Amino acid sequence: MPRPSTRLAAPSERARTLAAERLAGLATPAGALGSLGDAAVWLSAVQDACPPRPLDTVRVVVFAGDHGVTAHGVSAYPKEITALMVRQFLSGGAGVAVLARQHGATLRVLDLGVDVEPGAFPAEVGAHKVRRSSGAIHVEDALTPAETAQALAVGAAVAAEEIAAGADLLIPGDMGIGNTTPSAALIAASLGLDSRDVTGRGSGVDEVTLAHKEQVVAQALARAGERVADPVDRLTALGSADLAAQVGFLAEAARSGVPVLLDGVISVACALVAEDYAPGSSAWFAAGHRSPEPAQALALSKLGLEPLLDLGMRLGEGSGAVAALPVLRSAGALLTEMSLLADVLGS
Amino acid sequence: MPRPSTRLAAPSERARTLAAERLAGLATPAGALGSLGDAAVWLSAVQDACPPRPLDTVRVVVFAGDHGVTAHGVSAYPKEITALMVRQFLSGGAGVAVLARQHGATLRVLDLGVDVEPGAFPAEVGAHKVRRSSGAIHVEDALTPAETAQALAVGAAVAAEEIAAGADLLIPGDMGIGNTTPSAALIAASLGLDSRDVTGRGSGVDEVTLAHKEQVVAQALARAGERVADPVDRLTALGSADLAAQVGFLAEAARSGVPVLLDGVISVACALVAEDYAPGSSAWFAAGHRSPEPAQALALSKLGLEPLLDLGMRLGEGSGAVAALPVLRSAGALLTEMSLLADVLGS
Repeated sequence: MPRPSTRLAAPSERARTLAAERLAGLATPAGALGSLGDAAVWLSAVQDACPPRPLDTVRVVVFAGDHGVTAHGVSAYPKEITALMVRQFLSGGAGVAVLARQHGATLRVLDLGVDVEPGAFPAEVGAHKVRRSSGAIHVEDALTPAETAQALAVGAAVAAEEIAAGADLLIPGDMGIGNTTPSAALIAASLGLDSRDVTGRGSGVDEVTLAHKEQVVAQALARAGERVADPVDRLTALGSADLAAQVGFLAEAARSGVPVLLDGVISVACALVAEDYAPGSSAWFAAGHRSPEPAQALALSKLGLEPLLDLGMRLGEGSGAVAALPVLRSAGALLTEMSLLADVLGS
Repeated sequence: MPRPSTRLAAPSERARTLAAERLAGLATPAGALGSLGDAAVWLSAVQDACPPRPLDTVRVVVFAGDHGVTAHGVSAYPKEITALMVRQFLSGGAGVAVLARQHGATLRVLDLGVDVEPGAFPAEVGAHKVRRSSGAIHVEDALTPAETAQALAVGAAVAAEEIAAGADLLIPGDMGIGNTTPSAALIAASLGLDSRDVTGRGSGVDEVTLAHKEQVVAQALARAGERVADPVDRLTALGSADLAAQVGFLAEAARSGVPVLLDGVISVACALVAEDYAPGSSAWFAAGHRSPEPAQALALSKLGLEPLLDLGMRLGEGSGAVAALPVLRSAGALLTEMSLLADVLGS
């Protein structure tokens, strides 16, 4: 995919204005819908439709990969869990699989960089594999430049496939032991922050491991140096195959004008990079949930996004976004189906 | 209904323990489900079932009534809106009606004290009417003791009907211009607080009206005096027909061991009174959403409840609780359907 050279088209200001007027005309006190009102106006704008259409075809894509840093003591879990969990997505027992089933969303899982042989998973999972694990970012680049380009292109192609299949909302998910480390590094590099500001407990590491993880992030940032000014080089130095693919996926969704509901720190890190890679992307994104990872709040704030849910979830996988899906649907339904004050007073 | 003389039966400790063990055994880091994990354990306890059963039959009951204080400048809206909105519940255009339809919950609206003639609404709405409006609590009692008893009995009878119809979760809603004023007074009286701590903007009053509303609450509390120590006398002095009915509804649900998802400041005020009226009730309640009304947070804290949603909604009607219903259902589905770590490691 050629890298977008100009700012992406923005959501429809016309529909946004119509939706804001409709919201103000509902038979309810001003602002009574709270952030559901804001979400409904955003839905109208990204759909160029007021009232917004129902979100009937929601597609969740989980990008799986391992991370070299996992061998260096940044996670409470061994890397072998990544491959085991990929199988749980397929069997339907992973958290995001349960939630996708509940809310009628399709779920697709892709091996971008899991540390298993090609062919270890069914073809539809493994067809897009870029490499076995990504580099340990504190001592080496995550990817070669060619691998970064390949991963970005895979993500874009997958988004295009899902959109061609009728997606009216896309949800990115992640699976990869150790993936909060490159995500924290990407957020620090994107925002010019220190490792101390962005490093969190991920799957639940103790104090000693947290301090070590922060050191790994600091070392990675120092090693990457000035290259991180460019979003593609940033992914090469600090990302991974799965994260780069998610960036391509997000940017392509935005370029195609299809809205995205973001998940936790992984997808918000990718959204920050996507905004630099394809400026204007983030107008097509809404935030599903607030993660306990400190870097997520910093990135959301930069993107100007307020999450729908704040449940203390830190399961990853896209689960927070899928849990928020019915709330986003409620926002649309309220703006579409609630009585207007004019109708009530005339009734 | 005879007033319960002893503490209600508690939810099942056996099921709670089993659920907590199952939660700890899921293929996910400890605590990764956040408050969804807590909600799932509560569901198991109130259902005495681990894993919990799906919430297939959810019934929303809206208690409607007018409040004498509305004639004394505490609301941004005239009392005539109450009756107009009752018709919107019936036509399906009210916010809670939209959400109940979206989530497959039944919706029932009852006129307990709307300031309209008996017969103004269809029979199923008006059959339980106690009086036309309730008293202006800063200058007179809301109800006579007989009316309070009648309203409590109506609420209990309605809960019993809904439970007989198969409800596995009940959601109380409210409709009544001015109803945040008696709710604030009930919360202040229940918690021994000052009017300043509990008075909020309701449907969105300005500074001057807010100051006046606070004065009305203070005057009501002073007028009621020591009588508020008794929960029934508290309703007589400071409540209303619709609020007293909701208290009876909540207490009967708890007495019958059927869980309740609470809404905003109105239902949380009623839950506080229900806990005094039928001690042990609140163990059967979960909180749907956080209201911007300051009194709601104080009451939730006293009840030990943490809301699932915090969206800045202040629509009333039960809408915040119904918006939270899919999130509560997700909690149950995750505990029921997610793989156990033992299965993953064995796969």
